[in-house]
Amino acid sequence: MSAFQPVELHHASRLINHGPTVLVTAAHHGHRNIMAAAWSMPVEFTPPRIAVVVDKSTFTRELITGGGGFALCIPGANAIDLTYAVGSCSGREMDKFAHFGVTSTNAPVLGMPVIEQGCAAWLECRWLPEAHTEDAYDTFFGEVVAAAADPRIFSEGHWHFSHDNADLHTIHHLGAGKFVIAGNQIAAKALDPA
Amino acid sequence: MSAFQPVELHHASRLINHGPTVLVTAAHHGHRNIMAAAWSMPVEFTPPRIAVVVDKSTFTRELITGGGGFALCIPGANAIDLTYAVGSCSGREMDKFAHFGVTSTNAPVLGMPVIEQGCAAWLECRWLPEAHTEDAYDTFFGEVVAAAADPRIFSEGHWHFSHDNADLHTIHHLGAGKFVIAGNQIAAKALDPA
Repeated sequence: MSAFQPVELHHASRLINHGPTVLVTAAHHGHRNIMAAAWSMPVEFTPPRIAVVVDKSTFTRELITGGGGFALCIPGANAIDLTYAVGSCSGREMDKFAHFGVTSTNAPVLGMPVIEQGCAAWLECRWLPEAHTEDAYDTFFGEVVAAAADPRIFSEGHWHFSHDNADLHTIHHLGAGKFVIAGNQIAAKALDPA
Repeated sequence: MSAFQPVELHHASRLINHGPTVLVTAAHHGHRNIMAAAWSMPVEFTPPRIAVVVDKSTFTRELITGGGGFALCIPGANAIDLTYAVGSCSGREMDKFAHFGVTSTNAPVLGMPVIEQGCAAWLECRWLPEAHTEDAYDTFFGEVVAAAADPRIFSEGHWHFSHDNADLHTIHHLGAGKFVIAGNQIAAKALDPA
């Protein structure tokens, strides 16, 4: 594992621009949790804001509204099994960090637990309360207050997918425990009119 | 191009569960448009609902609010250049369908223009007006009223990424015209506790 490096906030949206499945972490009053979420997206570059769907049944939802924040951690290809595992049990019944041997550190602004082991990047977010969309669509909004990435795959505001960092290639949940892995980075070419 | 087949509505969320970049199409009063959007996600399985970020400056936003609907079309790997091209110009200045030679058909419920050529699937959506989130976060919600997919890559409610359908593998925008392509489909394995 390389040491994570800070990501400038105006580049934070790029960390999830391509739709990776993420691990949502949160902590409050001595409790902490990890859940998997395929449903997240940026909504604004500056200030960097994101949306994520957190079901009403989840323990994480209680921690977010109690603690006022959360983090999105972006698992790499080697963390597929972990991602599916934490998405298939409830933090009400166990401390998933301890149960699955996941090490976390405290992010710098809100102290949210973030995972670097097996992950490509993380975004620490302040909860932006929106009672109606949380109720009607389970959609939570957050403002990114800190972000960091493994410089082997994200540096100077850009992703660099290559054969050398295949363990950090992002994973994208198709449903029912099946994932596709992102790779084969390509630049678009200018297109002539028909 | 294979003939698209209908996708059952309770499977529609799976079409964008893995975060592909999409083409948002809309039409109203004889005008139509295509824009690219990296920022979309499902928000509910049943009824199938999605969220997509549509900037206030876009022509598509006028068409959605005027026409009451939109569609998300999911471009395959061969459509990277088209996706970037339609995301880099405005429909106020041209009919992008004509300009880039894109053929569309009318989706069955609302008549939204959907693209099958070069695409893996589409979802036709009824606009769910949410003035606050549209204003504060540029976030639009929609309910999927029809969906279809190319059975070479999506059938019976499941994606099937393989070497044989590489042209339909979904594309995921990293930013600034750089994309990663999804591939290498893998099933998660059960994980023992630490």
